[in-house]
Amino acid sequence: MNILILGMDGYIGWALAQKQLYLGNKVFGIDNFSRRENVSEMDSDSAIPIANMERRISKIKEVYGERIEFHKGDLTNPDFTDDIVKKSAPDAIVHLAEQPSAPYSMIDQKHSVYTHQNNVIGNLNLIYAIKNYAPKSHLIKLGTMGEYGYDPGFVIPEGFFEIEYLGRKATVPYPKMAGSWYHWTKVHDSNNIMFACKTWGLKSTDIMQGIVYGTRLKDIPAYIYQPTRFDFDEAFGTVVNRYCAQAVIGHNLTVYGKGGQTRGFLALEDSVQCISLLIEKPPEDENYRVVNQFDEQYNVTDLANRVKKIGDDKGLDVTIENIENPRKEKEIHFYKADHKKLRDLGFKATRSINEEIGHILEDLIPHRDRIIKNKEAIIKQINWGSKEISPVINNKNLQTA
Amino acid sequence: MNILILGMDGYIGWALAQKQLYLGNKVFGIDNFSRRENVSEMDSDSAIPIANMERRISKIKEVYGERIEFHKGDLTNPDFTDDIVKKSAPDAIVHLAEQPSAPYSMIDQKHSVYTHQNNVIGNLNLIYAIKNYAPKSHLIKLGTMGEYGYDPGFVIPEGFFEIEYLGRKATVPYPKMAGSWYHWTKVHDSNNIMFACKTWGLKSTDIMQGIVYGTRLKDIPAYIYQPTRFDFDEAFGTVVNRYCAQAVIGHNLTVYGKGGQTRGFLALEDSVQCISLLIEKPPEDENYRVVNQFDEQYNVTDLANRVKKIGDDKGLDVTIENIENPRKEKEIHFYKADHKKLRDLGFKATRSINEEIGHILEDLIPHRDRIIKNKEAIIKQINWGSKEISPVINNKNLQTA
Repeated sequence: MNILILGMDGYIGWALAQKQLYLGNKVFGIDNFSRRENVSEMDSDSAIPIANMERRISKIKEVYGERIEFHKGDLTNPDFTDDIVKKSAPDAIVHLAEQPSAPYSMIDQKHSVYTHQNNVIGNLNLIYAIKNYAPKSHLIKLGTMGEYGYDPGFVIPEGFFEIEYLGRKATVPYPKMAGSWYHWTKVHDSNNIMFACKTWGLKSTDIMQGIVYGTRLKDIPAYIYQPTRFDFDEAFGTVVNRYCAQAVIGHNLTVYGKGGQTRGFLALEDSVQCISLLIEKPPEDENYRVVNQFDEQYNVTDLANRVKKIGDDKGLDVTIENIENPRKEKEIHFYKADHKKLRDLGFKATRSINEEIGHILEDLIPHRDRIIKNKEAIIKQINWGSKEISPVINNKNLQTA
Repeated sequence: MNILILGMDGYIGWALAQKQLYLGNKVFGIDNFSRRENVSEMDSDSAIPIANMERRISKIKEVYGERIEFHKGDLTNPDFTDDIVKKSAPDAIVHLAEQPSAPYSMIDQKHSVYTHQNNVIGNLNLIYAIKNYAPKSHLIKLGTMGEYGYDPGFVIPEGFFEIEYLGRKATVPYPKMAGSWYHWTKVHDSNNIMFACKTWGLKSTDIMQGIVYGTRLKDIPAYIYQPTRFDFDEAFGTVVNRYCAQAVIGHNLTVYGKGGQTRGFLALEDSVQCISLLIEKPPEDENYRVVNQFDEQYNVTDLANRVKKIGDDKGLDVTIENIENPRKEKEIHFYKADHKKLRDLGFKATRSINEEIGHILEDLIPHRDRIIKNKEAIIKQINWGSKEISPVINNKNLQTA
C-alpha cells in the first residue's frame, strides 16, 4: 500500500513512518518542520537527540531501500497539497500535520490565529486535494479526546449517540466542548471532515486520541529503530513525558491544581499500532468513522504517583508538588469514555504503563544534561485566563491572515 | 450608546445603521466592500440601486449630523480590528461582516478557504480585540439557523438543551449539523465565541437567524430612509427575495427539488428590530446567550405559492417550476425550532409576510430592467456534489493562506 504521512517529522509521525516501512508499505512523507521551530520558540529542544530529515531519510534508506520519499512543504499551500496527493497516489493518508499544543495556541492572538490557519485551512486544502485527486483514499485524521471536553456530565460515546429530547429520538454527533483554541481547531476539522464525507462521499477515520507517552516501538529491532523526538516543555511535552523528564533531573513533578483531572492515555507504540490497524481496516459500512483511541484512564495525580514510585525504585529521589493550574478546567470531575471500536478491530495494549514509564526514565537518563539545559521551559505558566504571559515567549514571524 | 457595526455596507448592516441612528445612538461602521465585489463576481448587482459609501455617509450626515463614522477595512487584519475596537469604545458590537452565502462557499477550494479565512479568522481577531480593548462590550454575532441543520429529528432548542444518556442527564450545547462550508464557518465562530465567553468572561449574544426577506423599514420615514441592497442571484439572493425578482420579470419561480424544505423566516425590518432589542437588553445572567431569530416557519413551496398569488393579484403572470436541487438537503422533513427568547424580550412581527411580499414586488417593479440585465445570475446551479461548475464563475484574486 501507499501511505502518505503528513507531519512525518513529528513525535508520532516519525515512529509511524518506521512502523509502516517495517510492515512493508511504501511511505510518502511531508513536513514543514514547524514542530522543531515551535519547540525552539519555547526555549526548548527534544530531550532525545534527533537527526535532521536529510540524515533521517538516508539512514532509513540503508535499511528499507527506496520505499520512502519525503517532501518539505506545508498544507496551507494548496498547490503543494494537491501535488503531494497526486504524486503519492495514496491508499491511506495519515494527517498528523497540525499544531498540537493547547498551551501554545493560548499564548496570544498570533498563536491562536496561527493554530487556526495551520490546522483548519491546512485540513481544508487537504480535503479538497482528496476530493479532486484521490477520492477513494482513506483519510485517517488525528483528532483528540479533548474535542469532547472532560466534564460533559455523562459517558462520552465514540462520535455519535442516540439521545431523546421532548419525546423524539435521534442519533446525532456528540456536542463538542473543547477547552483551548488548539482543541477547538480539532473540532472544526472534525466537523469539516464529517461534512465532506457526507456531501462528497469521502472516506475517513477521525481519531479521538488520548494523551500519548513513551519512547519506544517494541517490534522494530533497536539496531534499526531511529528514535523519535521527546518534548518536555510546558507547551509540547505531554504530562507523563513531562513528569519523567522532571524526575530524571530532580525537578518536582508539577501537578496542576487539585490533580483530579482524568484523561485517557496510551503509549506511543500503541498509538502507532492503532493507526496501523486503522490503515489495514478502513471503514466498511460508513463514510465517516470516529474512534476513541486510548488504552486506560488515569488522573494526573495517580500518574505522578506512578512516576515517583518507579523513579524512586531506580534510585531517583522524586517529589510531587501541586502548583497553580494555568489552565481553566475542572480539577475533580466525572469521566468515562467509550473506547470499544479499536479493541473490536484487534487492538491490545503492548505493555503496562508502569513498564513504559520505566523505559522512558531509562531512555532519558543518558540525556539528563539536555533536559537540565532547557529546564526553564518546563514551567512557563501559559495562562488560559486574561493575564498575558508574553515575556517568556520569543517572537517569531507567525503566519497570519 | 456607541454601536460598532461590522459589515455596515451589507443588506442588514445598512438598514441597522439607520435604525440605530434613528434611535439616537452613535454608529461606527466598517466594511471591506466584499459583498459588492462578490455579487459582481456572480455577474449580478443589487436590484435596487445603492449609492457608494461616501455618498451614503454624506446623505446620512444631512439627517443625523456627525453621529456616524465609517472606516474601510477588514477584520482579517488584526491591527485594523484592534484600532476600530479601541477607537469606537463600543457598548455593543454587531458583527455582520461575514461572507454570507452558502452556494458561494461551495464553488471550489478557493471559495471555501476564502469563506473560512474571512469568517473564522476575522471573528477570531475580533474576539481578541474585544478581550484586549473592550472586554465589557456586548458582542452581537450574526449566526444562522442553518448551524443547527434542518433535519435533526427533534425540536431545535435555543442553543442548549438538557439530554439524558445512559442514565445521566446534562445540559449541553446542541450538536451542530450544518449543510455547507458557509454554515460550518458560522458553527466554528459560535464555538469560538462560546469558548471565549467561558474562558475570558466576554459577553455575547449569538443570533441563530432565519432567512431574511424584504426591502423596507417601517418606522423610518421614506424621505430619510436610504434603501439597502437587494440581491437576487443564486448565491446572494435569499429565497423569498429571489422569487419576487423572478415574478417581476416573468421568470418561473424556481423551487429546488420537491420543495418541502422548511425554514424559519423573518422580514428585514424584524431582523433590525430584533438586533436593536438585543442591543438594548444584553444578557444578564449568562455570558453567552443564544437566540433563535425568526418569525414563522414556511416551506419553500408555500412561499412560492404566496409570491404567485400576490404577484398574480398585481397583474404579474407568475408560474412555479420545480428544478433539480443543486444542494444536498432533505426535501421533505420534520422541522420545529424554538424561538421564544426574543418574544420574551418584546419582539412582535411588524407586518404579515404577505404584506411584505407585496411591498417587495412594488419596490422591484421600477427596477425590472436591472433584474433582466443580470437574469442569468438567478440560476447558476452551483453544485453541492462533486461536479464542478466553475465555468460560470469569474475568477478573482481570492485571499488564500
